[in-house]
Amino acid sequence: MTSQPLDLLPDSSTSFLSPYLPPSRPSDRVFVTLTYAASLDSRIALGHGQRTQLSGSESKCMTHYLRAHHDGILVGVNTFLADNPGLNCRYSIAGKSPVEASPRPIIIDPTFRCKIESRSKSMMAAACMEGKEPWILVSAEWRNSVSPSDLVHIQSTERMGARVIPVVGLQSDNRNESWAAILKSLKELGIRSLMVEGGARVINDLLCTAVDDINGTKVSPIDVVIITIAPVYLGKNGVEVSPATALDNLYDITWDQFGRDCVMASFNKKLRATF
Amino acid sequence: MTSQPLDLLPDSSTSFLSPYLPPSRPSDRVFVTLTYAASLDSRIALGHGQRTQLSGSESKCMTHYLRAHHDGILVGVNTFLADNPGLNCRYSIAGKSPVEASPRPIIIDPTFRCKIESRSKSMMAAACMEGKEPWILVSAEWRNSVSPSDLVHIQSTERMGARVIPVVGLQSDNRNESWAAILKSLKELGIRSLMVEGGARVINDLLCTAVDDINGTKVSPIDVVIITIAPVYLGKNGVEVSPATALDNLYDITWDQFGRDCVMASFNKKLRATF
Repeated sequence: MTSQPLDLLPDSSTSFLSPYLPPSRPSDRVFVTLTYAASLDSRIALGHGQRTQLSGSESKCMTHYLRAHHDGILVGVNTFLADNPGLNCRYSIAGKSPVEASPRPIIIDPTFRCKIESRSKSMMAAACMEGKEPWILVSAEWRNSVSPSDLVHIQSTERMGARVIPVVGLQSDNRNESWAAILKSLKELGIRSLMVEGGARVINDLLCTAVDDINGTKVSPIDVVIITIAPVYLGKNGVEVSPATALDNLYDITWDQFGRDCVMASFNKKLRATF
Repeated sequence: MTSQPLDLLPDSSTSFLSPYLPPSRPSDRVFVTLTYAASLDSRIALGHGQRTQLSGSESKCMTHYLRAHHDGILVGVNTFLADNPGLNCRYSIAGKSPVEASPRPIIIDPTFRCKIESRSKSMMAAACMEGKEPWILVSAEWRNSVSPSDLVHIQSTERMGARVIPVVGLQSDNRNESWAAILKSLKELGIRSLMVEGGARVINDLLCTAVDDINGTKVSPIDVVIITIAPVYLGKNGVEVSPATALDNLYDITWDQFGRDCVMASFNKKLRATF
């Protein structure tokens, strides 16, 4: 591995991003940043299981800068299987080692379908001191009735340094209900800020999810949305981001050009606003 | 009608747009600007037949500024029926009357399904000297075997000042083949520059269309693409822009924020570049 660190962002770009970074003050809940890169036709890949490089070098650098400012980075198991992502931070932060700057990779994987190997990019990044070992969130229900072969799989995964974490309330077929459980677990595990990077199902679910706030009101768990738009069309057979319902939740919206891409940064209203 | 003229764009916005405006020099073909406003999930409307206001006032103003710089503005008959658009220019151009500044509304309507009435917004704009009367492009094949009732419909439409123009080669079921015929007709009718505004079917077809250039090479008829992106999601049931195939045709791309929207302006390669 030993990948090259990325170029530094110009001051104008860090100023653009700075209002949207997770606050340093403690909070009783996880600060959630939804971030992804899509084409003009809101596709994130040419097809299911096809890793598609959309972002140019400038917006990719921006993504790694964001990673340096979050405790965790979350993807769904399908994205993990399709992309074999490193999920580390290659942006140099003064006074921090690459491991310290890197967020914790977190994989939602209720029935533990991901096969993490020492050659998986995220494991290699950790082995090279360029990232952290992933945490795999599995359903507590699944974990409680695990088969002997799955138990071997869990043990071999954990021997490599990754963790397989049972989450009470994580369901394989109801992501909306699962988000509250996921965020509660992550909070207990010390994750104060989380970047959600994909894939499409995770993003579409999260956009429409409502969780209970401390008063029992149903609110969106998303604090900030940062989207990179690449000036290409991936076409109607691509994997698309489009939530089940119309949403007009974003405010304090700023756009900034990064290379040939554009990045939108915005806050997300807690109470759902339908278009 | 007598609608208020729109605010003027700041110099920064007109400078941003200026490289992408149709050239004043004569050409042997129609200069085509594809332009539309979409949500983050590339939807242009909440549903078929549902007019959906996406652009903020600043990007709407930009659209009218573009209209002032084109001879014609084209929409499909479904958009005409769903939106009853004025298709005129409400941007004040020094030395030009609103009629002079307005492009010619052009409706692709192979079997003449649109019912233009004196109360149609485009007709009212023309009656108030705020726009031009529309031209309706019908299939020559359909026109040659027109029924008596359709003939009455044509005559009453033309008495109001609109024109019903038969186009040889315009087909109702093969838009790809039809574009060459449409552009040839418009060129003969004196249209040197054309804005294509929608709807989704027209945009998706045009993005994938190739016409013969003077050497017989198949090329895209689009010269410039200008897209407004509004920071909302219209959701998966919305009407989407996404071409049949992946495309990586845009170059010299610039993005500029207009209010809370962002506008992308770019040139379009003549030879198709697949992503």
